[in-house]
Amino acid sequence: MNDPGFRALEWIAGKNPGDPPVIRMLDQTRLPYEEVYVGIRDHREMAEAITSMRVRGAPAIGMAAAYGVALGAARMEADDVDAFVNALRPVSDLLAGTRPTAVNLFWALDRMQRAAEQARAGGGDIPAIRERLIAEACEIDRATFESDIALSEHGAELIEDGASVLTHCNAGAIATGGYGTALGVIHAVHESGRDIHVYVDETRPRLQGAKLTAWELTRYDIPFTLISDNMAGHFMARGEIDAVIVGADRIAANGDTANKIGTYTTAVLAREHDIPFYVAAPLSTVDQKLASGDLIPIEERDHEEVTLIGDVLITLDGVTSANPAFDVTPNRYISAIITERGVVRDPFDKGLATQFEEHDRERT
Amino acid sequence: MNDPGFRALEWIAGKNPGDPPVIRMLDQTRLPYEEVYVGIRDHREMAEAITSMRVRGAPAIGMAAAYGVALGAARMEADDVDAFVNALRPVSDLLAGTRPTAVNLFWALDRMQRAAEQARAGGGDIPAIRERLIAEACEIDRATFESDIALSEHGAELIEDGASVLTHCNAGAIATGGYGTALGVIHAVHESGRDIHVYVDETRPRLQGAKLTAWELTRYDIPFTLISDNMAGHFMARGEIDAVIVGADRIAANGDTANKIGTYTTAVLAREHDIPFYVAAPLSTVDQKLASGDLIPIEERDHEEVTLIGDVLITLDGVTSANPAFDVTPNRYISAIITERGVVRDPFDKGLATQFEEHDRERT
Repeated sequence: MNDPGFRALEWIAGKNPGDPPVIRMLDQTRLPYEEVYVGIRDHREMAEAITSMRVRGAPAIGMAAAYGVALGAARMEADDVDAFVNALRPVSDLLAGTRPTAVNLFWALDRMQRAAEQARAGGGDIPAIRERLIAEACEIDRATFESDIALSEHGAELIEDGASVLTHCNAGAIATGGYGTALGVIHAVHESGRDIHVYVDETRPRLQGAKLTAWELTRYDIPFTLISDNMAGHFMARGEIDAVIVGADRIAANGDTANKIGTYTTAVLAREHDIPFYVAAPLSTVDQKLASGDLIPIEERDHEEVTLIGDVLITLDGVTSANPAFDVTPNRYISAIITERGVVRDPFDKGLATQFEEHDRERT
Repeated sequence: MNDPGFRALEWIAGKNPGDPPVIRMLDQTRLPYEEVYVGIRDHREMAEAITSMRVRGAPAIGMAAAYGVALGAARMEADDVDAFVNALRPVSDLLAGTRPTAVNLFWALDRMQRAAEQARAGGGDIPAIRERLIAEACEIDRATFESDIALSEHGAELIEDGASVLTHCNAGAIATGGYGTALGVIHAVHESGRDIHVYVDETRPRLQGAKLTAWELTRYDIPFTLISDNMAGHFMARGEIDAVIVGADRIAANGDTANKIGTYTTAVLAREHDIPFYVAAPLSTVDQKLASGDLIPIEERDHEEVTLIGDVLITLDGVTSANPAFDVTPNRYISAIITERGVVRDPFDKGLATQFEEHDRERT
């Protein structure tokens, strides 16, 4: 499989020793009209970029948070090592406060915190801790890309030649480590030479399907049909959809999955039509601490995302609206969860736990 | 119940004998930003208004078609009565070609054709046939309003005090005879002094929920929450929706119902959550000639309705999209169909046939 060659974010080291690093970020709020890269210089700019969704998608948010800590550390001075490590806490807290649902954010921040503490425990000085944090962020980035590739290969085995697949939101290269999760699976099928057609839910309110998935699929030359979210049931009833595949923002230990609002509806429709419903996500999206999906916090975003499209007010001024950014799909609607370690089916709690055990065993 | 006082369309006779009549039409493409009334002077302008959805909603389309024939007849000259009646055929055909799904259109045109033929058979001259056609159109208008009132009363009995009800698209006063069908039921509950809260699906692609239903509910002072269509499942799963009520564009003899795209999805979701799903429509929306819903023609509209919102292109230029304007909800998802003659439940074919028999008996 080929690297699509565009990244949500990229670490750019300073040209000369002592020059501050910068993250080169594809500003996803300006796609598909403009491909604009912005420079993110510190953790505050990174927090703003996550909140405003210049970077989005759970795996990419994890990477962004890790790089945010690394940027903060790169620019931070302190009198001694303890003060330095302590000063990382507010950096981490700022980033943790950006978005509540995608667990990769907290997972990455935990990893960065542990990396700093390990470096200190190993006797590292401030430059050594900085280096360790940069290395850890780059390692998260690299591992996330590898997870994309691995899970896309596993998922591609589930999709038949000539299949028509529905996806919701964008779980592509720009949302992940650089290849994609749900869209990575689709891309892998295409790269293997098999035919695939994609129904792309536009994904109201922010239209990530229309704006981002359509843009990526055009890049990959994969044929697709853009639809309003409410058309999926119609096309399923007509037998035109063979599978649904989506990413995830947080998966509970039992497999219940939070993903972009509207995902749950596609899952209910898929079951009603006996169509397999697949979730593709790295293990870093699985929150083992949560027993079930009803414990996942659901972000409520600005209601103007619903009432304004571009500058167009689509309703009367002052109307009451709701904007839950995610919903939870209970595990009983999910045919399989595809991770970098393979395909998990019911009972999901057991399957996911086994994958974590394997993962932990390999790391020790 | 009070007349809301605004009409999709209204027949305005000429001031002096011989002055041509005109239809005063609320231009629904400009709501909710502007309340603009346009004058429709002949059947060609009426056909354009139906195609471009200045007037929409199945019962209102039926009225518009009837008035379109009346306008055509009012301005038409012919050498004799036979030539006059024959010349009505292309007028009717032009109107019949505007939109394929709402059966009220064809029902109204049939009634107008029969009225002309009856007037001729009764020995009427051209002015008498003209008068008869105008009277028939006004009678369709009046009867449609009465149906709205009657079915809204029947439907209101199904909704409990304090209920939260989801509706899709707009089946309000401006889509019907002047009181509403699905929204008429909601309005009747409100007018009876009971509490009701409405979840309003924005209804992509043309956003009739956000633009029209939100506007009407604001007028009636009925509290509501505007949501993206893909949020309905989320709120149902949280127990926040007690019933779904929608209008219809065509109901087959067995109760299968074509309505605005996305209706089928809300029906599947409703059943999954054990929430009653109601269809409210006059008998003129029931097509007894069609045994089941798979025979209902589904209009495919301009794809720019999906890719453009106002002037905002929401995806890449040239993207392939789909735009089926309606979907079909099989009768097994429908808890009840509410008509002006009461509430029909499974078996729908029998219940609807009984209502038609009663209707025919009263007319003879």
